[in-house]
Amino acid sequence: MFAVRVAASSPPPPPSAAKMMMSSSHLAPAPPPPPSSSLCSPDARPLLCTRTPSRLLQRRRRWRSSNLSRSMTRRTELERARPALTVRARDGGAASGEVETAVVERPRPSSFQVSRGRPTPLGATARDGGVNFSVYASNAASATLCLISLADLNESRLTEEISLDPMINRTGDVWHVFLKGDFADVLYGYKFDGKFSPEEGHRYDATRILVDPYAKAVISRGEYGILGPEGDCWPQMACRVPSDGDEFDWEGDLPLKYHHKDLIIYEMHVRGFTRHDSSKTDFPGTYRGVVEKLDHLKELGVNCIELMPCHEFNELEYFSYNSVLGDYKMNFWGYSTINYFSPMVRYSSAGLNSCGQDAINEFKTLIKETHKRGIEVLMDVVFNHTAEGNENGPVLSFRGIDNSVYYMLAPKGEFYNYSGCGNTLNCNHPAVRQFIVDCLRYWVTEMHVDGFRFDLASILTRSSSLWDADNVFGKPIGEDLLTTGTPLSSPPLIDMISNDPILRGVKLIAEAWDTGGLYQVGTFPHWGIWSEWNGKYRDVVRQFIKGTDGFSGAFAESLCGSPNLYQAGGRRPCNSVNFVCAHDGFTLADLVSYNDKHNLANGEDSNDGENHNNSWNCGQEGEFAGISVKRLRKRQMRNFFVCLMVSQGIPMIYMGDEYGHTKGGNNNSYCHDNYINYFRWDKKEESASDFYRFCSLVTKFRHECESLGLSDFPTAERLQWHGHLPGKPDWSETSRFVAYTMVDSVKREIYIAFNASHLPVTVVLPERPGYRWEPLVDTSKPAPFDFLSNDIPEREVAVKQYAQFLDSDLYPMLSYSSIILMLSPDTSA
Amino acid sequence: MFAVRVAASSPPPPPSAAKMMMSSSHLAPAPPPPPSSSLCSPDARPLLCTRTPSRLLQRRRRWRSSNLSRSMTRRTELERARPALTVRARDGGAASGEVETAVVERPRPSSFQVSRGRPTPLGATARDGGVNFSVYASNAASATLCLISLADLNESRLTEEISLDPMINRTGDVWHVFLKGDFADVLYGYKFDGKFSPEEGHRYDATRILVDPYAKAVISRGEYGILGPEGDCWPQMACRVPSDGDEFDWEGDLPLKYHHKDLIIYEMHVRGFTRHDSSKTDFPGTYRGVVEKLDHLKELGVNCIELMPCHEFNELEYFSYNSVLGDYKMNFWGYSTINYFSPMVRYSSAGLNSCGQDAINEFKTLIKETHKRGIEVLMDVVFNHTAEGNENGPVLSFRGIDNSVYYMLAPKGEFYNYSGCGNTLNCNHPAVRQFIVDCLRYWVTEMHVDGFRFDLASILTRSSSLWDADNVFGKPIGEDLLTTGTPLSSPPLIDMISNDPILRGVKLIAEAWDTGGLYQVGTFPHWGIWSEWNGKYRDVVRQFIKGTDGFSGAFAESLCGSPNLYQAGGRRPCNSVNFVCAHDGFTLADLVSYNDKHNLANGEDSNDGENHNNSWNCGQEGEFAGISVKRLRKRQMRNFFVCLMVSQGIPMIYMGDEYGHTKGGNNNSYCHDNYINYFRWDKKEESASDFYRFCSLVTKFRHECESLGLSDFPTAERLQWHGHLPGKPDWSETSRFVAYTMVDSVKREIYIAFNASHLPVTVVLPERPGYRWEPLVDTSKPAPFDFLSNDIPEREVAVKQYAQFLDSDLYPMLSYSSIILMLSPDTSA
Repeated sequence: MFAVRVAASSPPPPPSAAKMMMSSSHLAPAPPPPPSSSLCSPDARPLLCTRTPSRLLQRRRRWRSSNLSRSMTRRTELERARPALTVRARDGGAASGEVETAVVERPRPSSFQVSRGRPTPLGATARDGGVNFSVYASNAASATLCLISLADLNESRLTEEISLDPMINRTGDVWHVFLKGDFADVLYGYKFDGKFSPEEGHRYDATRILVDPYAKAVISRGEYGILGPEGDCWPQMACRVPSDGDEFDWEGDLPLKYHHKDLIIYEMHVRGFTRHDSSKTDFPGTYRGVVEKLDHLKELGVNCIELMPCHEFNELEYFSYNSVLGDYKMNFWGYSTINYFSPMVRYSSAGLNSCGQDAINEFKTLIKETHKRGIEVLMDVVFNHTAEGNENGPVLSFRGIDNSVYYMLAPKGEFYNYSGCGNTLNCNHPAVRQFIVDCLRYWVTEMHVDGFRFDLASILTRSSSLWDADNVFGKPIGEDLLTTGTPLSSPPLIDMISNDPILRGVKLIAEAWDTGGLYQVGTFPHWGIWSEWNGKYRDVVRQFIKGTDGFSGAFAESLCGSPNLYQAGGRRPCNSVNFVCAHDGFTLADLVSYNDKHNLANGEDSNDGENHNNSWNCGQEGEFAGISVKRLRKRQMRNFFVCLMVSQGIPMIYMGDEYGHTKGGNNNSYCHDNYINYFRWDKKEESASDFYRFCSLVTKFRHECESLGLSDFPTAERLQWHGHLPGKPDWSETSRFVAYTMVDSVKREIYIAFNASHLPVTVVLPERPGYRWEPLVDTSKPAPFDFLSNDIPEREVAVKQYAQFLDSDLYPMLSYSSIILMLSPDTSA
Repeated sequence: MFAVRVAASSPPPPPSAAKMMMSSSHLAPAPPPPPSSSLCSPDARPLLCTRTPSRLLQRRRRWRSSNLSRSMTRRTELERARPALTVRARDGGAASGEVETAVVERPRPSSFQVSRGRPTPLGATARDGGVNFSVYASNAASATLCLISLADLNESRLTEEISLDPMINRTGDVWHVFLKGDFADVLYGYKFDGKFSPEEGHRYDATRILVDPYAKAVISRGEYGILGPEGDCWPQMACRVPSDGDEFDWEGDLPLKYHHKDLIIYEMHVRGFTRHDSSKTDFPGTYRGVVEKLDHLKELGVNCIELMPCHEFNELEYFSYNSVLGDYKMNFWGYSTINYFSPMVRYSSAGLNSCGQDAINEFKTLIKETHKRGIEVLMDVVFNHTAEGNENGPVLSFRGIDNSVYYMLAPKGEFYNYSGCGNTLNCNHPAVRQFIVDCLRYWVTEMHVDGFRFDLASILTRSSSLWDADNVFGKPIGEDLLTTGTPLSSPPLIDMISNDPILRGVKLIAEAWDTGGLYQVGTFPHWGIWSEWNGKYRDVVRQFIKGTDGFSGAFAESLCGSPNLYQAGGRRPCNSVNFVCAHDGFTLADLVSYNDKHNLANGEDSNDGENHNNSWNCGQEGEFAGISVKRLRKRQMRNFFVCLMVSQGIPMIYMGDEYGHTKGGNNNSYCHDNYINYFRWDKKEESASDFYRFCSLVTKFRHECESLGLSDFPTAERLQWHGHLPGKPDWSETSRFVAYTMVDSVKREIYIAFNASHLPVTVVLPERPGYRWEPLVDTSKPAPFDFLSNDIPEREVAVKQYAQFLDSDLYPMLSYSSIILMLSPDTSA
């Protein structure tokens, strides 16, 4: 158990809530340890940190591990059960009348006017001067709406219960009730009673107060990283009750509707982006902080940001002392959703103000302001599993509402673990798929997001476990029954999303694999509109650029938008999201600085994280290396960036790569709320005349060139392959050279060459009578000559240095370098 | 064209609107003919009766005709295009300022406060002091919300147009706008512009004002059968705008939730039920009329009514003079839906009062009052086609909104005609299936109906035509593309309906065939919960009872709930809706009075209607027959009714059969708004001591017997087959005798025998020591001895007449008769 481990290793304890309120920064060294007994509350209730079993953490470590295929989660350590909320009569004194069980047989007469309510829409809806509550729970025998005032929540008290009559307040599988009354500072949750019979798939527990899956904000702890009132990592949660006054002034915000082919995506983390002191933002680590720094993105030239998870999650999920770094492990990334409709409240500078409405509005402001700058917003959504983990995980919402519906279960009730995180959302169950579509619609229509990146999307293509529902033609036709988890050729959920009238036109991007061994890059069921994180692009480009034999052909295909993957299915280059680095794996700087992962800081002896990184340290391992190694690394970073920006398809940059952010070789930094994951604004400033400048220029160059964002795969009229000699490409096993010319309606023609060999080469350029090739990019040159922008004072001189080569249609390339040349009229002729 | 035909045959013209307002009854002989020119309005606009081409009427005639399989509708006569609504400035005079085209370039500034609106929910929704309008139209280039005051609608004027901006008022494929202002007596519709390119599937016409598919009431003509203001059968329609004050007092009405096995269904027609003068109702032919007569249903013992179509349709669809009967043909049955959310306004005594809200409330009152009497309400829903017919049909709603989405189209835009009515709703298209589910949810949650009977439900299992949407894996994988209309093993629509959380528990009954040759009785994709109209039961029972060789085994299976059809798929007897007669085909009285259909009154030389009726006239054709023939007919009617009520499964009675209603041998009476289809309350009174009494008693007997509504198929412990000798059933080809005993927890044991032979037989009953068999039912006896109810004064005497047989465990049966005997303790022993 965690408490024992804490005592054994004697770390500094976590900052208490009271202390942290005074000092909002906990980047400072941990405060001196108070007596360890303070970790438990005075009434001897245990410290309720849910320690996710070690196995559950593997998802962010071995994201393509095949030995997890279809494995069930194993029972590991038993989590200590969380005590039920204390129920106290509303007017009861604080010291008396306390009851230790949440089950109150006969609640007092309601202070609300209660009527039958309606089953639609699901969730809580302000209407007709009251609020309609509606929740799906097909296997529950009874349901109780729990009302909790903000004050009572802080005191772990339940304010009022309204039990629902199955005859009156239930339509089909939906429970509903309508309340009129004073909802000021009132939150809600539900209790459900029913079977606790894990082997049948049911895990009802009438003492739990559960979060409505359709809650629009989840209220518990208001400040990021701060423990709950009694040192609890998982204090009771409750849901915001909507009100008529929730309108937000969008100032006419409308979707930008960029064509996919014109996108340049920037994958970023809300907190990490401005949490570092060097951001000098007024609201570091929040949605507002991001808004303060949007100009950076504009400057970099990206026109789309992809936010790592912003659905409500618990950053204290893995909360434990990290003896390596001397701080606490967190769920920093947030791939562990508690509620899919709620923006992460603790990413908001407003905290719990107005019961979460301010947080919602802060998220909306982020969207609105981003749109104002011509940048779209995609959300990384984690519909493959929830924060409830395996059978030892906490009961927060789905598990207590309808375990056998929301989770993919084996015949004896075990949790399938295709996500590597202990459970698998039963995505293709009729109720769950409707839930997911409702959720996506909400983010599009209410929150104005422009699209989604689906984490481990292959799980969304797996058949659901229909616990005891009949199959279409009944039980006995066994051969028609699909095994739970079988990949479906036409998954109903993907069908629904793809064909939803309201979702029509939003960006849909699949991370087309899961940890159950399913790898669907190029084969994800796409309905013609889904894009994919092109993991094969990443692998091929890394191999080729670092100089591995045998990849020239594959590299050429990658440059063309991977027609090998996408052309046969009728898709286009823009269905490929190209990336070299993402949150998973090495950063760009680490990719060229480390041969091996260095994950000790994760506290698992470097057993976590990907082992096959296709990385190359350029001669020496780690940050501290000789000057020539460092020079080569810079070249390689430029090569990768050039490759990304000239490739057909949608390029994606990972936050921080534009200035060469390092995680010190950690390729699985999910748990670090510290410098490892923080964007370093000071480093970016340093890089302003170097790599950052280069990236910005190449990014803008891509936008300028018509031929670099084609709507279809390039044809021979458009693209000509070259080798060391023009028109003579070398596709042999040992080739490390790929070059081509592209006809461009804006730029006339472009020559692009990648020399991934350890040897320099002088290439012969294709002759273009009446024109000559002008240098633009050469990754082997030091800044600012790596990109010969017009504003370099010495530009003319620099250009002249290679004039004699270019006059003869030649260009001398260094080893591991790439170039871009432009065709321009030969004025000397 | 109709006008020409009218002139040629010189019939009495249809009653004009003005005349009919004075004389509400048009059962009286048609008024003397006015000059035929009055059929056209003074401004020479043509009389706008859409004459559905003869081919389109075949659906109600040849419902199982195989030669229609996958046939397209053929172009027949071209319908004259309907003129566009006249647009007049709101304050323009009636005589001046009239513009003959509906396209107004710059409408005046709106008198409403207009804002962006939301895409969900679809339809018009009262909210936040205004109304949100939302409509799906994926292929439209522009959309205009049309507001029409009730006064302007009567004058064919458009009051105001609000054109929607595709950038602002469109989210995905959904157009939306929010209006605040005075909506008193304001109706709405839409205009869409886009391609008119039938070969691509698009049929946009910006001059048409269209009905919102989600309209809650459709307003045009208010009184049934009365032509529009200018003699128009299809005057302009508009939709009700909802308001906050639409609440209805349900008085706590809750679903009855009867188990399927306990149902006895009564298929009825709202107008036909009380339209006849003999009903003596205050509101004949309306929902209120039905309420006035609910006690009859209670008395008959049914606990569920199935209403023939009550969705808005146009009873004047086939309006034409019928020279055979001297009246006008109507679409009386109503299998031709204009709008699926709107109750048929002209079935309401309130007509257009409060823009349709009173009609909605009248429908709700019908449901509420029916529930109060312990009777559930099922709706017959026609989701297989719409009233828009084929390419020559009117453009009312779907066709002008998104033709290629709503209709199943062949590659060149032709309409598939699996319905036999000119078009086929594209049910499995993602947008259409959501539409259907939304609609069903509405009727359940808002209207409190208890379930649905799906007309030609097999069409709902056919694959959609995805006009130019990509298939899941793109175009080139041709082998994966399903042909439009292919029956699907797991149709998405049926999946959605079957697994919808809100529809969970409502009754779902499929008419499991279509006119495209698909016949799925026993094989409809049922998800364990669908019941079927058991057409095979009807056929087998008719054959056996009329004395056809070779049906004894099949008849025995029919009595058991058709395990041959339903057991293998995991279903139960209650998944079989058993019926002998329904609206399609002969009535029960006609079934025993006619060998052949007599459909001359339909005006198609008796070419319409089913030819294989398995009927028998008992010796003489027609109503006028000798006394012995009439006696045999009565016996046969009793035999059928006994069979229906002792069969496992859900028995369904067709309205009027309980008193022996005759349609004079017409087996396809869809077009008659007259005595043919009217329930004859006078005849029912006459029958009170005869067949009606018998039916009521047998129906009540079924309710009393535990063994007649089993939840599963009877086993050998429960049921024992007999022949002329006990325990010796005769399943030979020539057997016309089936008998069995059923153990019954209430009635001890029942003996049931059917002698369908032309010869009498004295059967030996199974010995039950200590007990003797007591007579209850003998269909060969004259009333009241056919059912020996306890209230018959002569009961004791009657029982004694057969005592000598029963003392010896014998019973003498007449030819074509059936008996029910009860086991009782032998007090004489």
